[in-house]
Amino acid sequence: MAEQLRGKLVVERIAADLAPRIEALGRADVVPTLAIVRMGERPDDLSYERTAKKRAESLGIAVRSVVLDEFAPQEALEAALHEVNHDPSVHGCLLFRPLPAFIDDARACEVLDPRKDIDGITLASLAAVFTDGHAGFPPSTAAACIEMLEHYGVPLEGRRVVVVGRSLVVGKPVSMMLLRRNASVTICHSRSNDLAGICRAADVVICATGRARAFGADFFSPGQTVLDVGINFDTHGNLCGDVDFDQVEPIVGAITPVPGGIGTVTTSMTMAHTVAAAERALAARDGEGR
Amino acid sequence: MAEQLRGKLVVERIAADLAPRIEALGRADVVPTLAIVRMGERPDDLSYERTAKKRAESLGIAVRSVVLDEFAPQEALEAALHEVNHDPSVHGCLLFRPLPAFIDDARACEVLDPRKDIDGITLASLAAVFTDGHAGFPPSTAAACIEMLEHYGVPLEGRRVVVVGRSLVVGKPVSMMLLRRNASVTICHSRSNDLAGICRAADVVICATGRARAFGADFFSPGQTVLDVGINFDTHGNLCGDVDFDQVEPIVGAITPVPGGIGTVTTSMTMAHTVAAAERALAARDGEGR
Repeated sequence: MAEQLRGKLVVERIAADLAPRIEALGRADVVPTLAIVRMGERPDDLSYERTAKKRAESLGIAVRSVVLDEFAPQEALEAALHEVNHDPSVHGCLLFRPLPAFIDDARACEVLDPRKDIDGITLASLAAVFTDGHAGFPPSTAAACIEMLEHYGVPLEGRRVVVVGRSLVVGKPVSMMLLRRNASVTICHSRSNDLAGICRAADVVICATGRARAFGADFFSPGQTVLDVGINFDTHGNLCGDVDFDQVEPIVGAITPVPGGIGTVTTSMTMAHTVAAAERALAARDGEGR
Repeated sequence: MAEQLRGKLVVERIAADLAPRIEALGRADVVPTLAIVRMGERPDDLSYERTAKKRAESLGIAVRSVVLDEFAPQEALEAALHEVNHDPSVHGCLLFRPLPAFIDDARACEVLDPRKDIDGITLASLAAVFTDGHAGFPPSTAAACIEMLEHYGVPLEGRRVVVVGRSLVVGKPVSMMLLRRNASVTICHSRSNDLAGICRAADVVICATGRARAFGADFFSPGQTVLDVGINFDTHGNLCGDVDFDQVEPIVGAITPVPGGIGTVTTSMTMAHTVAAAERALAARDGEGR
């Protein structure tokens, strides 16, 4: 029986950490504010927007929805992002992706001011993750993986961590963040030979492929810590992770459930980044006033 | 007896590839030109400058030395880089580092126009390496490792490559470039547990730690390909790599010598990047003229 690394405890601890910081911002008349920019009414987006709003409200963070038509042109999206950039009352911006196919995603992302990029979508944020710099913020999902490992005291220094998936949202940034914590990091993917063998030899395995229950018993060994980043639906429409939980949970030492694992913490990281962005903006304003 | 992966053959092939491209540039009255910016007269810098000039000359690439006093202030260095940026006859810039301790290295690097950054020192170049983008160029040493592997037909797809060293000059960028070629990439460093065991399990090992002969027989196994990026001097003042060549060469399948390996190819990559930068500048000029 593995220890279940539940997101709830991490979420509660983050909320407790943020409360006095949000209070301090309030004393300076700043309400940390997140803009959610989306195109159209995709059910996934609406569901995540509801979750984010509820979490934000409970913390004292304001959320503003910026909704564009699903057929709005590139210029309209960029104009909306420019407005976010120039509005001093907005501190962070979450742009729901994937964007419609006719939108140039890379160009749109580059419009956002890195100071408001609380989900690591700009090149400035990604460069900072790669170079251990300070611009912007890492993607919230990658940050949630690190937060989960640190909350539960999973040792990283010198340990072998295997990350499966090389996206810019999770795989690559979380690998850089683990490297900074002195882990030996292996980045694998669908083309890796003997993926199961590589995973079995690790101390920590992070599964971020987006393939429902693709990681069965043969990928794991006793004592390992497993982070399941996947949020998928199986053929019966049931929510599930990348890991076949029922098969794997009896083998490993610790595992995050889906739902209730990484996804839960991701929303909190979005909030924590928004508060940090508000703090940085206040510090910059005070710096100018001196 | 391992196959020795000599840089010379790679250098000759690159020269043959570049010749018609440099000719074509010549027909448009463009001489690809590299600016070498250095502070003071460090023997290492002078030696590398001589090598680079000789190689450039043999190819038909011009080199301009921009020499600052070793005590020149930050402003002088930045002014020199601005001059490089604004000079349309200069296509690439090599800034010799490490810079003196009183110089803010990161700030200086950011002055350089990424289009002239033929050695991957700007955040734009590094972000492109991380995100598979197109701005700037990867660091020449990282590019030399890939060139060496591709020249000798070392399979990468699906294979396990271990990179030891996590610098922004070699370790991290070469890891991203290997990932793009569908290798499974493990990044290790001085804090890695069982580093020897991790190296022994790889198909390809890239040693980039800068520690003279730190990798002995116990790090390797039969059939492996070993790239030795180190350029060190031992206690007797002899040039040597990170790998203990005499111990390791009888074990592995293929290995790069030091000298005559990666370092030799690095200079060619600097030249290849300069030519590519000149081509891009010409294409941009022609584009404007239309």
